[in-house]
Amino acid sequence: MPRTDTRDRVIRSSLELIRRRGYAGTAISDIVNESKAPRGSVTFHFPGGKEEIAAEVVDLMTRDILDHVDRAAEHATTAAAVVRAQITEIGDLLKSSGWVAGCPVAPITVELADDSEVIRRACAHFFSMWQASLARRLADRGLDDARATRVAAMAIYAIEGALTVSRADRDLDPLHTVADEISLLCESGGGRGSPGP
Amino acid sequence: MPRTDTRDRVIRSSLELIRRRGYAGTAISDIVNESKAPRGSVTFHFPGGKEEIAAEVVDLMTRDILDHVDRAAEHATTAAAVVRAQITEIGDLLKSSGWVAGCPVAPITVELADDSEVIRRACAHFFSMWQASLARRLADRGLDDARATRVAAMAIYAIEGALTVSRADRDLDPLHTVADEISLLCESGGGRGSPGP
Repeated sequence: MPRTDTRDRVIRSSLELIRRRGYAGTAISDIVNESKAPRGSVTFHFPGGKEEIAAEVVDLMTRDILDHVDRAAEHATTAAAVVRAQITEIGDLLKSSGWVAGCPVAPITVELADDSEVIRRACAHFFSMWQASLARRLADRGLDDARATRVAAMAIYAIEGALTVSRADRDLDPLHTVADEISLLCESGGGRGSPGP
Repeated sequence: MPRTDTRDRVIRSSLELIRRRGYAGTAISDIVNESKAPRGSVTFHFPGGKEEIAAEVVDLMTRDILDHVDRAAEHATTAAAVVRAQITEIGDLLKSSGWVAGCPVAPITVELADDSEVIRRACAHFFSMWQASLARRLADRGLDDARATRVAAMAIYAIEGALTVSRADRDLDPLHTVADEISLLCESGGGRGSPGP
């Protein structure tokens, strides 16, 4: 199925390019080079151009992140260990890439959410699927459902931000801090609702 | 001093454009339009082009964020209230902009840190100045120095990530969750160092 292969290769290559340099910084010619797909077949498979490719990248990331949570949960006996395992994998990828492999959905959100309602919804769906999947693993390991939902949300926000700061610092310390602080939040059973200022 | 005015206006306009659509998505022609500066004077003031402008944007944001922390701390009597006040201001700006006004330093880091060592260091400096300034306010309100440093770091990472998710969701809930969870962390005195998984 060469057509399908080409299509998948273009999406996967685009994902890798966008996570390194953002959406506008990734040209169709970069995608053609990286995927080794003929330019004509890129146009054939994606008549909607780069924006259509970006939507497919977000869908692929949504499937990837669910696998990612599964892997992180596999050997983790506590809620904190699930988050820590996921952070370790994200940090390993970032460092081994030479500090360029961030999250592709963040730049797509920043650059496209205001222009494309389809892409904005796909990005929101990515974050909410990640949160729901992570929350379920935390609840399985003893957090009550409401705490699991909030701690999962906080973990995702902090991972996204720490990824950016780790790229600036060329250091994994920001991601390690997130793992440690999320451990504390897993132990903070009380205070849900609205702890006042 | 029309020259200085033009220079400042170009930097401020670029900051507003980059926070809305990223670095590569902001063209010099957009900057010329937004700042109403003659194209020749943009070239004159910034012979290094867009990359030089981006470095100035990060420096301006570094000054802005320190003022921002000052304002947040002004009426806040607790550590949690300092973070909540800062999040309220960031959320108000995001919502009133129609969900486009994010942090300009995040896309600059993602898009340029790998190409320009000067910009990478400027971005790292922005995050570390923000953290140090916020940590000082938290320590002034009773957190021990080590906790203040870690809670400030976590607040910044989570704010950055929640800003992205709030843009995707067109909703301030992610930022509110960060304010609530940071309140819990301000109360978690113990467990500093490395809480194990």
